[in-house]
Amino acid sequence: MTAECPPVAIIMGSQSDWETMKNAADTLDALGVDYEARIVSAHRTPDRMYAFAKGARDEGFKVIIAGAGGAAHLPGMVASLTSLPVFGVPVQSKSMSGLDSLYSIVQMPAGIPVGTLAIGRAGAVNAALLAARVLAVYDDELADRLDDWITRQTASVGDYPVDEAP
Amino acid sequence: MTAECPPVAIIMGSQSDWETMKNAADTLDALGVDYEARIVSAHRTPDRMYAFAKGARDEGFKVIIAGAGGAAHLPGMVASLTSLPVFGVPVQSKSMSGLDSLYSIVQMPAGIPVGTLAIGRAGAVNAALLAARVLAVYDDELADRLDDWITRQTASVGDYPVDEAP
Amino acid sequence: MTAECPPVAIIMGSQSDWETMKNAADTLDALGVDYEARIVSAHRTPDRMYAFAKGARDEGFKVIIAGAGGAAHLPGMVASLTSLPVFGVPVQSKSMSGLDSLYSIVQMPAGIPVGTLAIGRAGAVNAALLAARVLAVYDDELADRLDDWITRQTASVGDYPVDEAP
Amino acid sequence: MTAECPPVAIIMGSQSDWETMKNAADTLDALGVDYEARIVSAHRTPDRMYAFAKGARDEGFKVIIAGAGGAAHLPGMVASLTSLPVFGVPVQSKSMSGLDSLYSIVQMPAGIPVGTLAIGRAGAVNAALLAARVLAVYDDELADRLDDWITRQTASVGDYPVDEAP
Amino acid sequence: MTAECPPVAIIMGSQSDWETMKNAADTLDALGVDYEARIVSAHRTPDRMYAFAKGARDEGFKVIIAGAGGAAHLPGMVASLTSLPVFGVPVQSKSMSGLDSLYSIVQMPAGIPVGTLAIGRAGAVNAALLAARVLAVYDDELADRLDDWITRQTASVGDYPVDEAP
Amino acid sequence: MTAECPPVAIIMGSQSDWETMKNAADTLDALGVDYEARIVSAHRTPDRMYAFAKGARDEGFKVIIAGAGGAAHLPGMVASLTSLPVFGVPVQSKSMSGLDSLYSIVQMPAGIPVGTLAIGRAGAVNAALLAARVLAVYDDELADRLDDWITRQTASVGDYPVDEAP
Amino acid sequence: MTAECPPVAIIMGSQSDWETMKNAADTLDALGVDYEARIVSAHRTPDRMYAFAKGARDEGFKVIIAGAGGAAHLPGMVASLTSLPVFGVPVQSKSMSGLDSLYSIVQMPAGIPVGTLAIGRAGAVNAALLAARVLAVYDDELADRLDDWITRQTASVGDYPVDEAP
Amino acid sequence: MTAECPPVAIIMGSQSDWETMKNAADTLDALGVDYEARIVSAHRTPDRMYAFAKGARDEGFKVIIAGAGGAAHLPGMVASLTSLPVFGVPVQSKSMSGLDSLYSIVQMPAGIPVGTLAIGRAGAVNAALLAARVLAVYDDELADRLDDWITRQTASVGDYPVDEAP
Repeated sequence: MTAECPPVAIIMGSQSDWETMKNAADTLDALGVDYEARIVSAHRTPDRMYAFAKGARDEGFKVIIAGAGGAAHLPGMVASLTSLPVFGVPVQSKSMSGLDSLYSIVQMPAGIPVGTLAIGRAGAVNAALLAARVLAVYDDELADRLDDWITRQTASVGDYPVDEAP
Repeated sequence: MTAECPPVAIIMGSQSDWETMKNAADTLDALGVDYEARIVSAHRTPDRMYAFAKGARDEGFKVIIAGAGGAAHLPGMVASLTSLPVFGVPVQSKSMSGLDSLYSIVQMPAGIPVGTLAIGRAGAVNAALLAARVLAVYDDELADRLDDWITRQTASVGDYPVDEAP
Repeated sequence: MTAECPPVAIIMGSQSDWETMKNAADTLDALGVDYEARIVSAHRTPDRMYAFAKGARDEGFKVIIAGAGGAAHLPGMVASLTSLPVFGVPVQSKSMSGLDSLYSIVQMPAGIPVGTLAIGRAGAVNAALLAARVLAVYDDELADRLDDWITRQTASVGDYPVDEAP
Repeated sequence: MTAECPPVAIIMGSQSDWETMKNAADTLDALGVDYEARIVSAHRTPDRMYAFAKGARDEGFKVIIAGAGGAAHLPGMVASLTSLPVFGVPVQSKSMSGLDSLYSIVQMPAGIPVGTLAIGRAGAVNAALLAARVLAVYDDELADRLDDWITRQTASVGDYPVDEAP
Repeated sequence: MTAECPPVAIIMGSQSDWETMKNAADTLDALGVDYEARIVSAHRTPDRMYAFAKGARDEGFKVIIAGAGGAAHLPGMVASLTSLPVFGVPVQSKSMSGLDSLYSIVQMPAGIPVGTLAIGRAGAVNAALLAARVLAVYDDELADRLDDWITRQTASVGDYPVDEAP
Repeated sequence: MTAECPPVAIIMGSQSDWETMKNAADTLDALGVDYEARIVSAHRTPDRMYAFAKGARDEGFKVIIAGAGGAAHLPGMVASLTSLPVFGVPVQSKSMSGLDSLYSIVQMPAGIPVGTLAIGRAGAVNAALLAARVLAVYDDELADRLDDWITRQTASVGDYPVDEAP
Repeated sequence: MTAECPPVAIIMGSQSDWETMKNAADTLDALGVDYEARIVSAHRTPDRMYAFAKGARDEGFKVIIAGAGGAAHLPGMVASLTSLPVFGVPVQSKSMSGLDSLYSIVQMPAGIPVGTLAIGRAGAVNAALLAARVLAVYDDELADRLDDWITRQTASVGDYPVDEAP
Repeated sequence: MTAECPPVAIIMGSQSDWETMKNAADTLDALGVDYEARIVSAHRTPDRMYAFAKGARDEGFKVIIAGAGGAAHLPGMVASLTSLPVFGVPVQSKSMSGLDSLYSIVQMPAGIPVGTLAIGRAGAVNAALLAARVLAVYDDELADRLDDWITRQTASVGDYPVDEAP
């Protein structure tokens, strides 16, 4: 384990998934949590995936966020090759609006867990928040930052729709 | 925080969910991870849910596993009231085979993460394994037990279907 | 209970739901039924939701219309915290066209009723009409206005498609 | 309006729906709310349906609960012929588990509201509870009985799964 | 029965359905089959629907084509009020792409038949062709025109994609 | 055309579909309409299907009822090879409850109409009723028998659920 | 069998499917595999389809790729008329995003196999790759070209999202 | 490549899939095609899967049949690690009737083809038939046996339902 390794790895199957997964990166930035974003394709770079997943714990990663679309095998395959917690983000597909991605990620058999988030942007944001919650279990400063984040989120909600305030 | 509080809370909306959620408890038992199982209904005991979720971190819990069926609001509501990691298990419903439970749990809006597992028994087992993976981030002994568990799981897979061995 | 409290509360999870829920407000305006529109998020402002729902009857509200999207917990949670009638409007979500919202609202367990309307604009209009029908049970003038509204609706239907009149 | 007319009509498309709709009747019994249960088929007895729906307000009914399965047209057609509040219960169908019933009832066009409950037994129970909530808007005694009902429901929820109590 | 009544009635729930149903009219025009197109809404003009359906056979109609969207009750209700053959066209809805329309039309209970066509434009064209096939059972000239139409359709299919001809 | 040919052909893809399609035969028996039931598989006996469909009009058939399950190609293929009216019955499949059968039958492209009935037994009964309605267009005696059938159906509907009669 | 017949036939139901199926042609071009693209409609040119499918093996084709949308009968019907391997591509439909096409192609009964690919462009590309894999079973040069193609595909995957490279 | 290696590998994720996949084995037996059946789990034995898939061509296999359920990653992962043709069989899952398996197998991204068969038993039979069709491209004797098989299948279809023969 090197000191420099950030705690969170954000991986995705292709460059085109970055538009969705960037929301995870931005959320971690906002929380002051370091991460590294890599393209790791289960189907097009299976060797890279094997090497990444098997070495992730030793590299020093603590949580893995994996986004993929269609027959989305990346989160589940990575989860089968590491004992780190893996959170999956279904990227919206063209023909099925992400239902295929969702089912491919969430319906893992007993034995190989993937914590699955919502389809698309919301899922990417929440994968980052969930990773932060995991790290905050043993990091009180981060827990405080998370609580601040939640407080600010609550405060940002208006009382009335903009044109209906009394 | 009291010393006696187990790290994992397993909550569920009703006694009937226990048949599914017991698989999470059994899996934690097998891994030597302590837990407490409670019935907390978002709809029938909303005050109990509020009190539980708001106090969970202070009670000493580190991870929450929440199972619910139908319009399954428990995991998401608890996640909105705590900053602990929450893992949701969709319990199979009668009319929609759990699709309603799955969508109600996984499609959380940006800001409130619930790591969702598969519908039914597999999801309950995996919620326990995911909770253990989270705890193992900072617990090397548990990480070793998890690795053993995975190794035994791999070893348990036969080479050939029983009546086809060469 | 204050004399000024309007009979209908229109609540919604976020400002962005207003585009849909405004149709409920416009319909109540057309029927001469007072209402108040507020943003109450189950997930981002759970305390506000608790306070609103528990106090709604005492504030003087008689019917609650609640709109929400995705894992739409607002209508069901409010229904669990009040004994007023609650009508839910599934707001169309991005990835599932509102199916997730519909299932999360309509599939409530026995014990906590939410009268659910159609996804999107039609549902918002109809939530207002249903609220008016409820109020009209004991308000003959409103019943007359509703009957007028229905009569005008019937009269507005042409006999032939515009370019097919004989 | 005759004094003897009960406030709630429970109608259903066929004798076979009674197995589901009986749960609405039992719930009203438990709350001390009178009702009348009739078979009114949109498809097999359209004239009976017209006569019933057009006369329901004058008969003295205040709320209508309508259960139907498959291409379930009864709730929506009745709602188009009366200005009373109508609550629809999708009865589980054989080939689509009630999805066809749900969509046929809930997706009403703007102008004709049907408050839709869950598929099957839970929906029937909740239709009765929602009808009671409507009647309780102007009936404080019923409101008290409803509050009692909710309190008893909350009290009936155990703290722990039966074999997990500490 | 008047001599002037055309054999086919095309009815639809609203003016907005005409964009789809016009394709039925155009197809009948192409086949030289007379029709009359009317707006008949099950929900907004239930009396007009009753009068139309009950009188359709006596007016002289032989086949009814009915288009509707969402909770599409028009085809089934008309079929319950006449013994003429009724063909239903599911009009594409906004939130469910026409699945709600399709299920509401096709899942009729035993006893009340509606011959259902595809969602949208193709369904409207085919409803017209099916009406013509019905009329052609006892009209040899129309049968010949239909055969010509089919022959022209076959002849219009190219042998190769436009930029791949050898 | 031979004098002996019955007006209705009931075809189905396999012997196992007969359990469903028998309901069409029984219904035609009840209405006094002759039919012939044959097994014609689009996939296993394509030549038989071609010969049957191309010769059906000349054989003297007037309406074809076709039942099939799974990727149900029989109704659509037959409709492409004849200009007789074809009514399709989706037979319930094992893994998709008949949704695959329904979509394969109803979603025909513009140009080739199949009037589709409900999934399973109800669809088979209704295919027979629809065939009778078609034949009754030019057969007043059959129209009378159909009207009697409908009258008896209406009369068979009780007024109250069996244990609720006042 | 003539020497000139290319090994792969790409057939599709209509000119409009070419936009999707062109991706199969382009992929075969890139692999140096000859093909012929034809329009063969199961519904509009059933005789052409019969003739093509029955003669395909004798013409010298070795693999058939068939694309179709909606109630997509082409791949299955061709598979029933030849013993060559048939690969089906579901073309995205307007109302159901290709789900109808997918179910109509993949849910073939036991006895008539169609190897089905993904909905739309990805499916067309993959049908070509699968055809090439089949031909490569007995063609080592093609196997080498396929391996090169896969190697280039792997090499084309970047290590990091474009704006995240370290 | 050793002379003894059979041409077809049947692999599956677990012993419980054998009940379904045995139908592939039986079908190959009936056609006189050799095969080897192995348990290879993508998730529980990822290393075994890598070794198998990467070595399959060198072992002498020519076609791979892979069956899996739920989030079924086996067929797609194997296809990414070999250039042999891979045919996938979705095994019926408990909560989603195999829809999750189907989507996880069929919706592969462009570049990695899996020829997908129907859910369950029919899919397993057809995977074997498709493998045989592939081998028959260069094996005239097998092509003859396949043709015989098809002829016998056609001959086995009765003319009439058993109790309807004239």
